[in-house]
Amino acid sequence: MSVAKAGPAGSGERYARAALSFLADPGDPVLGALVEAAGPDDVLAVVASGDPDPARSLPWGQSDAGSAARVSAVVLDRAVERWRAKLGELPSAARLAAWERSGYTLVCPGDAEWPTQLDDLGAARPVVLWLRGSIDLRFACLRSVSVVGSRAATAYGSHVATELAADLAGQGWTVISGGAFGVDACAHRGALAVGGCTVGVLASGLTFGYPKGHAGLFAEIERTGVMVSECAPERAPTRPGFLVRNRVIAALSRGTVVVEAALRSGAINTARHAGELNRAVMAVPGPVTAEQSAGCHELIRECAATCVTGARDVIELVAPLGEAAPGPSREPAVPADSLDPVTASVLAAVPPRTGRGPAAIATLAGVDLDTVLRCLGLLAATGHVERCDHGWRSRAL
Amino acid sequence: MSVAKAGPAGSGERYARAALSFLADPGDPVLGALVEAAGPDDVLAVVASGDPDPARSLPWGQSDAGSAARVSAVVLDRAVERWRAKLGELPSAARLAAWERSGYTLVCPGDAEWPTQLDDLGAARPVVLWLRGSIDLRFACLRSVSVVGSRAATAYGSHVATELAADLAGQGWTVISGGAFGVDACAHRGALAVGGCTVGVLASGLTFGYPKGHAGLFAEIERTGVMVSECAPERAPTRPGFLVRNRVIAALSRGTVVVEAALRSGAINTARHAGELNRAVMAVPGPVTAEQSAGCHELIRECAATCVTGARDVIELVAPLGEAAPGPSREPAVPADSLDPVTASVLAAVPPRTGRGPAAIATLAGVDLDTVLRCLGLLAATGHVERCDHGWRSRAL
Repeated sequence: MSVAKAGPAGSGERYARAALSFLADPGDPVLGALVEAAGPDDVLAVVASGDPDPARSLPWGQSDAGSAARVSAVVLDRAVERWRAKLGELPSAARLAAWERSGYTLVCPGDAEWPTQLDDLGAARPVVLWLRGSIDLRFACLRSVSVVGSRAATAYGSHVATELAADLAGQGWTVISGGAFGVDACAHRGALAVGGCTVGVLASGLTFGYPKGHAGLFAEIERTGVMVSECAPERAPTRPGFLVRNRVIAALSRGTVVVEAALRSGAINTARHAGELNRAVMAVPGPVTAEQSAGCHELIRECAATCVTGARDVIELVAPLGEAAPGPSREPAVPADSLDPVTASVLAAVPPRTGRGPAAIATLAGVDLDTVLRCLGLLAATGHVERCDHGWRSRAL
Repeated sequence: MSVAKAGPAGSGERYARAALSFLADPGDPVLGALVEAAGPDDVLAVVASGDPDPARSLPWGQSDAGSAARVSAVVLDRAVERWRAKLGELPSAARLAAWERSGYTLVCPGDAEWPTQLDDLGAARPVVLWLRGSIDLRFACLRSVSVVGSRAATAYGSHVATELAADLAGQGWTVISGGAFGVDACAHRGALAVGGCTVGVLASGLTFGYPKGHAGLFAEIERTGVMVSECAPERAPTRPGFLVRNRVIAALSRGTVVVEAALRSGAINTARHAGELNRAVMAVPGPVTAEQSAGCHELIRECAATCVTGARDVIELVAPLGEAAPGPSREPAVPADSLDPVTASVLAAVPPRTGRGPAAIATLAGVDLDTVLRCLGLLAATGHVERCDHGWRSRAL
């Protein structure tokens, strides 16, 4: 989980990507296209240089790297101007290293932990991801579902989100959400309640941790799952930033379930992203008398979202029979011999059939309970183990 | 509304059809195919004759009248045997005439009041319909929606069914349902509450009037709408008879809305009939925590039913723009000059734009209030008038 995998963040391309996350807004398509065409080092160099004609130094409009790269030099000039205004916020390499020592991991495209499904976002692919947590993001997202919805959830929506997430996580599916009040929080908590795997994707930096009231929840997620942001750690969220963040929630998972949403809601936006990315789009119906379900019903009626009533419906959709994906009766997403030694020892302590509780597994594996829970979450997400009446058992393959 | 339109029920084909409704179960496809091939007179004659080889006398297996007509003579023998067992129940022509005097109308294929959309049922088309009521069944069903659902409706389902039916009826749509407890009753009552038009289709004969607890509701429907059955008046319902009846509910209307239904429910059966008949299939979503909505959600997910949340969604589906059918901005289904004199006088008393209450209309038209309500229901169903804040107004064409 250390950035040392691909060299320290203070060096070359990795530093440049981290630095650019301090200058540009997340999902900036001009930056995405430039980075793709010229590489992050050159882009950062031109921004930092003060070169009055960036279009001359960067392969802007000359490459085939995407339609965004063919827009006018005026767009490029304005973008560079915006980024230069924030040059004062650039951290030193030493500051980056200090963040890493304090538990942050910087993940860049090409890293082993980079979730390659984010590449579907094209020029809007995050330049870098900041993580804090206990599990491998890429592995965790191999079998994952996003569960999102209204901040102003009703008792019904809160109940359904919690149950759905608990059922999904209990069957080895990672629950991804946005860490917001209401449905998002219920989704994270439902997954945590069954010792499952959950991923929080924030619109703010992780140190800022918006909403502040969820500091405890985020800490809990970090203990067994992982928190994710494409923003520099101390960055505050912006209003458009929430919508931009939603594309990451949609892209990370195999499908997005909207539990409750009013007609104009960020969750609807996440669902639309999922649809555009060819991910499954699902909505939980509710009373037609509640405006918090109106968005779900509209998704079902107008946007061909599938009407799902529980985890079974969701899993049926994201893991159809015959799909060459890790599923209950298939190969794990990661071969056992490429697991790290601690995770491998935990897996060795999980019996088939009858199962064993986490405490007994910890004793057998010779590691502490927190480590066992973290490893079980990862092993479940990658298809090695599953929950059963007596705790956890290894999967019949 | 009298059977005299096409000759008294005691004569020839009409008597034969009425008589056959005493002998055969509703929707008997053997009877349907036979009647189509040989005519009701000949079928009744052969049944009544005691001819030991009915296949010799009837064009069974020799016609192209449908696949049902080509099944073996064994099937025919057994059917005729079943019908003969009930010959003792045949009413005399005088008895039929007495029913007609007491308010029954017998409607046969080819009659002006026969709803020709029932012909879509093929060999399962009713042989005859028994009606009691105040409006023309065919006209009433030209702009109609079936609203059906669980007998064990929740407070939510009852509320939604009532509101939906009231909104549909208030916009000139006839509400068809099955007269059962729960959702059906709420649908009828919702339509009645706004002075709208409603049609009850029973699985029992109309004199039997199942369920008995709804005698008051059925009387109210007869006062301004119409009650329908394909069974002889005193016939009790049978368990399969409810499912057979559902095809009539589905066939009469442009679409069927299921408001609440458990997974195995008669309402689901009605919806499937509607789908097979290429009518719109719609379901109202509800809490996923309520088993009474599980059938609706399954219809939406598995059977491509449209998720509808109110009358607007329903009307959008059954009266799409561009459809050459009577709709809010189109010609009435029946030209004003073919209305009966009483209905025409009521229409003449309905002003455009601001509208007028039923009592004022009654005074102007010189008829009683009951008659006005009955005529307004018919005029709304055929597109001549619509409800407004101040009562009823004539439709801008």
